[in-house]
Amino acid sequence: MSRVAVLRIGYRLVRDDRITTHVALVARAFGADSIYTVGSEENLIEKIRALNNRWGGDFQVELTDDWRDIIKQWKTAAGLVVHLTMYGMDIGAVEEIRLKNKDVLVVVGAEKVPRRLYGLADYNIAVGHQPHSEVSALAVFLDRYFKGKELGKEFQDAKMKILPSAGGKNVIQL
Amino acid sequence: MSRVAVLRIGYRLVRDDRITTHVALVARAFGADSIYTVGSEENLIEKIRALNNRWGGDFQVELTDDWRDIIKQWKTAAGLVVHLTMYGMDIGAVEEIRLKNKDVLVVVGAEKVPRRLYGLADYNIAVGHQPHSEVSALAVFLDRYFKGKELGKEFQDAKMKILPSAGGKNVIQL
Repeated sequence: MSRVAVLRIGYRLVRDDRITTHVALVARAFGADSIYTVGSEENLIEKIRALNNRWGGDFQVELTDDWRDIIKQWKTAAGLVVHLTMYGMDIGAVEEIRLKNKDVLVVVGAEKVPRRLYGLADYNIAVGHQPHSEVSALAVFLDRYFKGKELGKEFQDAKMKILPSAGGKNVIQL
Repeated sequence: MSRVAVLRIGYRLVRDDRITTHVALVARAFGADSIYTVGSEENLIEKIRALNNRWGGDFQVELTDDWRDIIKQWKTAAGLVVHLTMYGMDIGAVEEIRLKNKDVLVVVGAEKVPRRLYGLADYNIAVGHQPHSEVSALAVFLDRYFKGKELGKEFQDAKMKILPSAGGKNVIQL
């Protein structure tokens, strides 16, 4: 099965810390295998390790200081680079991307991204053409890409598991 | 047509400021009519007003200091209260909610929410049972609720409009 990774490009380091954490949590919860982040808080790796330990799976975080290099590596390995931007093509293009059955690198930026990213990407895709958030754009893109099946994914070696409940919290220890 | 509003309950005021902004942007971009926020930054109203002016629509922000009162008002008016939480029922229940054809108040919290919220809500719904973000939970819930049609919504009286583009930015002045 093909791999999905996320590349988060941040530009306003301190302000974006918590947003970057949310982007990483979304990548993990919506079925991606890993995230590369630029200039993120160092304890993100530790946070995600603790989360994997508790809730399962082996989602990986890699810090990088050269996003262009990540894109280059990905293209050299014949992966697709998909940049999420409100200026891109309608999200319906996700069908075409899925049918290619290749590894996918999903790139999300903060408010401003370098213009050359548009040219480097194989696809520039818009999750709607109104401003919202890289957190929501990533979630909805992955939800469409995996056709909703990612929400039923089993995370291996979890210590805790939630049993769906109409009116409260029902968590079992495994 | 029935109305959809979002109620954002925040608990760690300063840390949650930017997340609250993202929640508001998601509510607007994914077809909700308004958002109530608790203890949010005051300039959120100004930000959204500027956004409406530029990108259209009349999405409303209302500050409140009593979330229970908002829920009570909503229930008195026969609206449904839907609380998004990783502990809730699977998202498939959104079909049942849509079929009821009522006004919907979607409640999203920060990491911790008061326990009594579970009992006050008509539905506790999980967008997956892994931790992620209220920003992504809201986006995916609304995307499912509106069956993706919200992304094609026209925002009235916009000054700018994006034309979908494969490789750059194409914005027209209206």
